[in-house]
Amino acid sequence: MPEYKAPLQDIHFVLDDVLAFDQHYSRLPCGQDATPDMVSAIIEEGARFAERVLSPLNQVGDREGCQFDNGEVRTPTGFREAYQQYVEGGWPSLSHAAEWGGQGLPDSLGMVINELSSTANWSWSMYPGLSHGAMNTLEEHGTDEQKHTYLTRLVSGEWTGTMCLTEPHCGTDLGLLRTKAEPREDGSYAISGTKIFISAGEHDMVDNIVHIVLARLPDAPAGTKGISLFIVPKYMPTADNTIGERNAVSCGSIEHKMGIHGNATCVMNFDNATGYLIGPPNKGLNCMFTFMNTARLGTALQGLAHAEWGLQNSLTYARERLQMRALNGAAAPDKAADPIIVHPEVRKMLLTQKAFSEGGRALIYYCSMLVDQVKYAGADEKAAADTQLALLTPIAKAFLTETGLECANHALQIYGGHGYISEWGMEQNVRDCRISTLYEGTTQIQALDLLGRKVLMTQGETLKSFTKVIHKFCQAAEEEPKLRAFTGPLAKLNREWGDLTQQIGMKAMMNRDEVGAASVDYLMYSGYVTLAYFWARMAQTAQHKLAAGDGDAAFYRTKLATARFYFERILPRTRGLVETMLSGADNLMDIPEEQFAPA
Amino acid sequence: MPEYKAPLQDIHFVLDDVLAFDQHYSRLPCGQDATPDMVSAIIEEGARFAERVLSPLNQVGDREGCQFDNGEVRTPTGFREAYQQYVEGGWPSLSHAAEWGGQGLPDSLGMVINELSSTANWSWSMYPGLSHGAMNTLEEHGTDEQKHTYLTRLVSGEWTGTMCLTEPHCGTDLGLLRTKAEPREDGSYAISGTKIFISAGEHDMVDNIVHIVLARLPDAPAGTKGISLFIVPKYMPTADNTIGERNAVSCGSIEHKMGIHGNATCVMNFDNATGYLIGPPNKGLNCMFTFMNTARLGTALQGLAHAEWGLQNSLTYARERLQMRALNGAAAPDKAADPIIVHPEVRKMLLTQKAFSEGGRALIYYCSMLVDQVKYAGADEKAAADTQLALLTPIAKAFLTETGLECANHALQIYGGHGYISEWGMEQNVRDCRISTLYEGTTQIQALDLLGRKVLMTQGETLKSFTKVIHKFCQAAEEEPKLRAFTGPLAKLNREWGDLTQQIGMKAMMNRDEVGAASVDYLMYSGYVTLAYFWARMAQTAQHKLAAGDGDAAFYRTKLATARFYFERILPRTRGLVETMLSGADNLMDIPEEQFAPA
Repeated sequence: MPEYKAPLQDIHFVLDDVLAFDQHYSRLPCGQDATPDMVSAIIEEGARFAERVLSPLNQVGDREGCQFDNGEVRTPTGFREAYQQYVEGGWPSLSHAAEWGGQGLPDSLGMVINELSSTANWSWSMYPGLSHGAMNTLEEHGTDEQKHTYLTRLVSGEWTGTMCLTEPHCGTDLGLLRTKAEPREDGSYAISGTKIFISAGEHDMVDNIVHIVLARLPDAPAGTKGISLFIVPKYMPTADNTIGERNAVSCGSIEHKMGIHGNATCVMNFDNATGYLIGPPNKGLNCMFTFMNTARLGTALQGLAHAEWGLQNSLTYARERLQMRALNGAAAPDKAADPIIVHPEVRKMLLTQKAFSEGGRALIYYCSMLVDQVKYAGADEKAAADTQLALLTPIAKAFLTETGLECANHALQIYGGHGYISEWGMEQNVRDCRISTLYEGTTQIQALDLLGRKVLMTQGETLKSFTKVIHKFCQAAEEEPKLRAFTGPLAKLNREWGDLTQQIGMKAMMNRDEVGAASVDYLMYSGYVTLAYFWARMAQTAQHKLAAGDGDAAFYRTKLATARFYFERILPRTRGLVETMLSGADNLMDIPEEQFAPA
Repeated sequence: MPEYKAPLQDIHFVLDDVLAFDQHYSRLPCGQDATPDMVSAIIEEGARFAERVLSPLNQVGDREGCQFDNGEVRTPTGFREAYQQYVEGGWPSLSHAAEWGGQGLPDSLGMVINELSSTANWSWSMYPGLSHGAMNTLEEHGTDEQKHTYLTRLVSGEWTGTMCLTEPHCGTDLGLLRTKAEPREDGSYAISGTKIFISAGEHDMVDNIVHIVLARLPDAPAGTKGISLFIVPKYMPTADNTIGERNAVSCGSIEHKMGIHGNATCVMNFDNATGYLIGPPNKGLNCMFTFMNTARLGTALQGLAHAEWGLQNSLTYARERLQMRALNGAAAPDKAADPIIVHPEVRKMLLTQKAFSEGGRALIYYCSMLVDQVKYAGADEKAAADTQLALLTPIAKAFLTETGLECANHALQIYGGHGYISEWGMEQNVRDCRISTLYEGTTQIQALDLLGRKVLMTQGETLKSFTKVIHKFCQAAEEEPKLRAFTGPLAKLNREWGDLTQQIGMKAMMNRDEVGAASVDYLMYSGYVTLAYFWARMAQTAQHKLAAGDGDAAFYRTKLATARFYFERILPRTRGLVETMLSGADNLMDIPEEQFAPA
């Protein structure tokens, strides 16, 4: 049976040794409680919960799925009880403001805990995950009264939240949305419309669900500039903080999906449901950006989650499964055959997973530091962090989910035919992972966001915020000959990244399709370079530790070897991407639409 | 709902215009009946059966799956009736020898028909597909009596067959197999053991199932040199050609799998079952190679099938789904938004599917011509065809299934979130496709077969049999300036292919792990070059047709544009592969096994 073991050594390596989170926390107003000891203790407790409570429910969730019956949704066996334990452990409140009942710890620490629960059981983790989206939206845009009524109950975990954006005819293009909000005399609104793909829209874990809903006011301008944001609770809250009558929002059905069976994906019908405006009218989409950026980072985590989970299990299998002999002669002559880990191509698949998991972890933790800074730092540092985060969020989301899916497929592949059989769990890992390149903006949308909105619309300034970081790192490491195998190629790629951007920018001035035609290749290229930076940093840290004779030498040597693998076996993928992203839009646009299929 | 329409125009383009099958058939002894009119009529009839009978059962098969009850397997609704129609139509006998009841038509024509049924419904098509494996084995290695008793009933379709190779502890490494065959006094054998992953091992479509089983004789040498081949029928045939008593072979359970739910994947228990030796003792594996090569080509077809099916449906969706505006301004200003086919990245995903489907079709049809030649041509031509087929089979199997899986994922991606929802069918296409890189030898095994056994062990001679073909093509096309964009890069790649082979060969003399470490990259590289050859040939044909003003000009222009897309957007992937395949085995082998995971 598949298992999950929290990779604590690697987590601490990234947090403590590579990114120096202790220094980062010591500079945050909310970081005073996040002492190294406290951080360690919280992570250990989170690991225990993930390993012992969530992980055993992962296959159960897939097998049973959610059951829909007349508007009610029953979650898989054990999900509800696990959620109760989660609430009792105080986990929902970890990184929310003390004012609303939270523990006020940094968001980045919440991200580490999310990694643990997400890797152990992604479907389960989406229930509290969506709640965080609703909490962040309320915390930033809600009135004090709204916070008292709703936020406190979400923070305590008594209630959960959702984000209701998508409609049957509009996913990416929210400007098309039709859900209406008619003002009533009492200041509330009557919300009517149908939302689809609402994760955790209905379930049996809590007494009340708080929906954050995008809808149009009667006089709203067309398109994205006429969208407002509303709170629509499943049950109306009462003055004494209990739940009152049922609101006119209901779950019409749940979807049958490829994976994440344990999470209910709901069609939600709003039939003159009572809602309350959050934030200014017609500014709903702007208010949503807060949520969407967090959600994108949360989805980036899904790529890491499935890569790490697949790595752990396929590694166990590769060490146990005996099949064929090593090419250079028997490695385990006492056995009927050698374990398949002796084969170079099996190792390549393992190391690919390792490179993306560990590299992805460093990238996500780095982004979560930026989130802390955006939230808590002074104006200048905040602005700088915001710019870098704007650049790195679409990269992290799309690149880590695309490579996460690749990794999940490698893990399955290592099992051979057994990988295709449900009981081994590897095919669930692929199915669960497959959603990650779709929701919260497909890879293609992230790519347009990155190249179009973030990079080209700022004349490359946003890009520079990060290439500067890479440049400084390479420069500072110039005197370290043992790192040259990493810093040399990295510095070159970093320059190339800027050059490519300029070339595409020039072409885009003549033809905007050039942006679209280059975008996914550009995003993937950016991802490979970004991860090369983190692998070079990890190699540097490992090198320093080895030189100082400090810590687990075998662990650091493996880090260096994995960095080398990344540079020699993964990074060359950029060569094809450079050619294709510069190959021009014509080879995509010249075929008339009606000619794609022969008669 | 997803649909399938047989791509008859493209099929005929490849058969008639590119590969000149009419000439090929006119030279075959069995090809006299395969006149162009007859071929067209058979393909049209096959298309009708695939579109009208098999395609509507594809989602049914996935949803219902096979039901196991006390040793019996019930196939999904309609599967049995479709099989009866298939038998009534005479399809099982199409390309088998007249002597045993077949129609004696060329194997390659059978491959075209297989493409149609496989694309419409892969799970269903595996039932007759496995039968062909058993038939080919019996036809080549069975005694006349065995052929009379078993082959005739398989050819008529009254019975079906299976291939029983895999055991729980051995898939790739058949040398480890344990199933025993004890000789009995009457000349039969008592077969005992457990086989797993037996496709179509038990079902309700026919009265009898003929298992071809690998097992060991009591005195057999260890390893692969001690394996023999046996016929084990589910029911014993009687002298009057009906079925007699039940044999001691039974289905213990069926697997719960990621996909191909409509096909029963069985655990088969042999408990002193009566079996009959086919072929010489201890030469079973050699006898199996016939089957395995056919099966590999059949699995290559699966890559094409899912790529074509995904292309057709995602193209329909891309033309209908309205979302966002084209980057250069509204393309359909009268609509709420533009159809998503206006977006370059959507087109890139469509064209990628198109390039691999249409290119894959040309490669597979070419291979099937070689199969005809191996079977029917004179000694020299036969030997030449055999050598080329030896090279191209692992390439077709692994490359077309890897790229087929990529394509199926693109098709799903084009649907956005809807791609993840079962009713649209796109996620089934991915799940069904996922098995193809695993069975009949994983991609990694095909890669070792290609680089190790086929290319390096023959000192590159096998490779030359095909690079010579490419070289001659490029040379002959030198005077056609309009083809230079294709023949120039192709000729260069063709030389590089040889150079890379030599470089790896040199390194392999020092360290055999270099073969393994380069193998999958080498195979994928070989696949890209091979498909470039077929795209260049298709471009040439299209160019000639256009110059002659002959036929559907729009179709030929699209062919040229797709060839350009392939050369500019797909072929650059070879650049990264060249770097990684030469990067050496050390970056894979240096990490001690126990260091892959930290403590």
